[in-house]
Amino acid sequence: MSSLPIENSKQLLDRVSKILDKDSQIEIRNLVHSLYPAETAHILESLEPEQRAKIWAVIPPNVMGEILVEVNIEVGSGLLKITDRNDLIAACENLGSDNMVDLLHVLPEPLLSQVIETIGTLNRSRFENTLRYSEHTAGGLMSQDVLTVRADVTLDVVTRYLRKRGKIPAGTDSLIVVDRNEQFLGVLPLSQFFSSDPHKKVADVMDGQSIGVIYSMPSRDVVMLFEQRNLLSLPVVADDGKVIGRITIDDVVDVIREEADHSLMGMAGLTEEHDMFSPVMTSAKRRAVWLGINLMTAFLAAWVIDLFEDTIQQIVALAVLMPIVASMGGIAGSQTLTLVIRGLALQQVSAGNTMRLLAKEVSVGLANGVFWSIVVTCVAGIWFHDLHLGMLLGSAMLINLVCAALAGVTIPVALDKLGIDPALAGGVLLTTVTDVVGFMAFLGLATLFLL
Amino acid sequence: MSSLPIENSKQLLDRVSKILDKDSQIEIRNLVHSLYPAETAHILESLEPEQRAKIWAVIPPNVMGEILVEVNIEVGSGLLKITDRNDLIAACENLGSDNMVDLLHVLPEPLLSQVIETIGTLNRSRFENTLRYSEHTAGGLMSQDVLTVRADVTLDVVTRYLRKRGKIPAGTDSLIVVDRNEQFLGVLPLSQFFSSDPHKKVADVMDGQSIGVIYSMPSRDVVMLFEQRNLLSLPVVADDGKVIGRITIDDVVDVIREEADHSLMGMAGLTEEHDMFSPVMTSAKRRAVWLGINLMTAFLAAWVIDLFEDTIQQIVALAVLMPIVASMGGIAGSQTLTLVIRGLALQQVSAGNTMRLLAKEVSVGLANGVFWSIVVTCVAGIWFHDLHLGMLLGSAMLINLVCAALAGVTIPVALDKLGIDPALAGGVLLTTVTDVVGFMAFLGLATLFLL
Repeated sequence: MSSLPIENSKQLLDRVSKILDKDSQIEIRNLVHSLYPAETAHILESLEPEQRAKIWAVIPPNVMGEILVEVNIEVGSGLLKITDRNDLIAACENLGSDNMVDLLHVLPEPLLSQVIETIGTLNRSRFENTLRYSEHTAGGLMSQDVLTVRADVTLDVVTRYLRKRGKIPAGTDSLIVVDRNEQFLGVLPLSQFFSSDPHKKVADVMDGQSIGVIYSMPSRDVVMLFEQRNLLSLPVVADDGKVIGRITIDDVVDVIREEADHSLMGMAGLTEEHDMFSPVMTSAKRRAVWLGINLMTAFLAAWVIDLFEDTIQQIVALAVLMPIVASMGGIAGSQTLTLVIRGLALQQVSAGNTMRLLAKEVSVGLANGVFWSIVVTCVAGIWFHDLHLGMLLGSAMLINLVCAALAGVTIPVALDKLGIDPALAGGVLLTTVTDVVGFMAFLGLATLFLL
Repeated sequence: MSSLPIENSKQLLDRVSKILDKDSQIEIRNLVHSLYPAETAHILESLEPEQRAKIWAVIPPNVMGEILVEVNIEVGSGLLKITDRNDLIAACENLGSDNMVDLLHVLPEPLLSQVIETIGTLNRSRFENTLRYSEHTAGGLMSQDVLTVRADVTLDVVTRYLRKRGKIPAGTDSLIVVDRNEQFLGVLPLSQFFSSDPHKKVADVMDGQSIGVIYSMPSRDVVMLFEQRNLLSLPVVADDGKVIGRITIDDVVDVIREEADHSLMGMAGLTEEHDMFSPVMTSAKRRAVWLGINLMTAFLAAWVIDLFEDTIQQIVALAVLMPIVASMGGIAGSQTLTLVIRGLALQQVSAGNTMRLLAKEVSVGLANGVFWSIVVTCVAGIWFHDLHLGMLLGSAMLINLVCAALAGVTIPVALDKLGIDPALAGGVLLTTVTDVVGFMAFLGLATLFLL
């Protein structure tokens, strides 16, 4: 009999925090034993390293592997450092082949070699094979636990074969159908066994329209296939058409989550693989890089302002109003930038529609530029009792909003073509453009018309 | 026999664009007929409205429904306007109950009532039932197509029952087990039929540890359960424990994608449900709201600067350097903000660890504040031959970086508690703080120490 869970992750986290504060070994142990590995992983990521160690100490070695696979790389490395070597080897032995490969990708040397040695010769060659596939391809996502059946046997024969075999790999929704030479032919959904005559041949009831993908397909494309065709699993084939593995939806869900996190975090110069509670100096150093790059662009903007020092000296109101031009350009530009970055990630922006998108975004920039120009002209004109100053501010803003739209489309598209992640570098470049153009336009126009 | 797809979504989009440019009816028709509904939906979202209409015109009514469910709300509404009413009714008749409900959520009145009328009395009451559930709960996500079996029968009996029934709902990986009173007991994975003795009772081989969730569970929590327990489907029960539906992983994947898009787009004041190619004036109006809010905060910052007009008049270098302080605060703050927004979305930030996170982020802000203060002190000191000015700049930046960390944690946590989406409102509030604090600290210190 099942119970209805009334506790969500946040409530669970609060409960864990309270138990940890009490520091009762027994309560911690009871708690940990009641959790799924992924729940434990989620909790571990949310805690500080010292609290993490308290939980980790009571986790049985046989579930350690599953937890290590679920946590992000940095948290995982931290846990590995406080794990007994024998426990770790026990942990590895309990993992399925796809999880094992994920873990091997994380293990640092010399631990990696040691673990590989202890796995045993047969398994080792399998893992070494899988490690060859890049993490971000179909090969890197697949599990080698597959059930293949021949097309020329009857469903009855398959049923008897499965019975004899006993265990079916987790998440099996269908069997992969191959010919004599192990060439991929199609898939046979398990549900067919309940709706078809048992004496029919596999070839007659299988789904021959289903596809298999080559091991080198980028994981981004694999994800699209799962999403667009509502797949639960997808066979993976080698160059010669032989079936070498199977990708399941649970791993695809992880990729979707990682990609989304990557875009969001990338725009702030962060990555999704870092520990929320990394040591202060580690975090500070990582973020320093981003701050340093931004400092350079800020000094560039300052240098532009400095060109107009004499102008500002004569009309201090310019110094008061100039951040408005830069700020509005930055906001408008980041709207366009975000739209395009998402379009690129979803593969909805390509050579075929970039020019149309550019035209549309520049038109939107123009429309908003005209509207807000009028508004700021009035506000600044009244504030400083100077309509000319207001009109200057309005004109500079109009120029900056149009440039922001241009930059918001061209920067990410260009970065994408160059193979640079637009989510990571797009924001800094855009702000540089909108700052420089904003200050230059406003102070430049002022120098021309007000002095 | 299957073929290996070599074309990803981007390449497909380019091919579609080329075919549309040629304007050949036959080629467009052939193309559309070769695509999956979700692929067509993806393409439609990537095109301009006029191009969209060309594709839509050749789509057979029986797949229109599936496509309408896949496109975002705005694109869908646009397509509904150019759809013949009879075609639309035909489209609805071909949909499964969960998709039907999704579509009904999108349909505008009076179309909604008309469609509901044509569905027929029996189905109507079912849909009206489902429409009662909020979209963002388990009830809104579930399909009513469920296969339930009684716990006290043998596997053999179930197999015969399924054979007689014929069709099994798409994505069925397991059957839901209930007692005499339709109370939820557990699930029976289809794979059990291949590994268990057919004379065993369902009760003996079912997974009694599996859970069912109440219809009112928030979809965010449903997603977590699927992710953490690697589920393929999840039974939904009513208040009285009766099984009323089933959530499948494909719908969960859609939710994950939508939530991720929502965070990313929300941070730029956009939403994921808008058309990339909405009409210029529609887009401009939507974005104008965001620009207007930001303009107010920019004027607030300008007002702060204006307080120090006299100071700037005497030392123009202050106007040159002041944007650096604001900009660095904004960047550092947005890093903390993004980290916390993601933590909140993943339910990894809660009352239990907020204070620890705040302490860590402020420490990081302090560390980077000290480091970059020293750097800017030197750069500005050399640039303006004035070490005091440099030290002022450094001190103001240190203050702003610490405040940015404070604001970066407290703003999203407070917004979340108030039920306001932190991804949407967090950025503006944060920039307001870092601008005001930045200008105030720099110009204030200058007034105190340099004059």
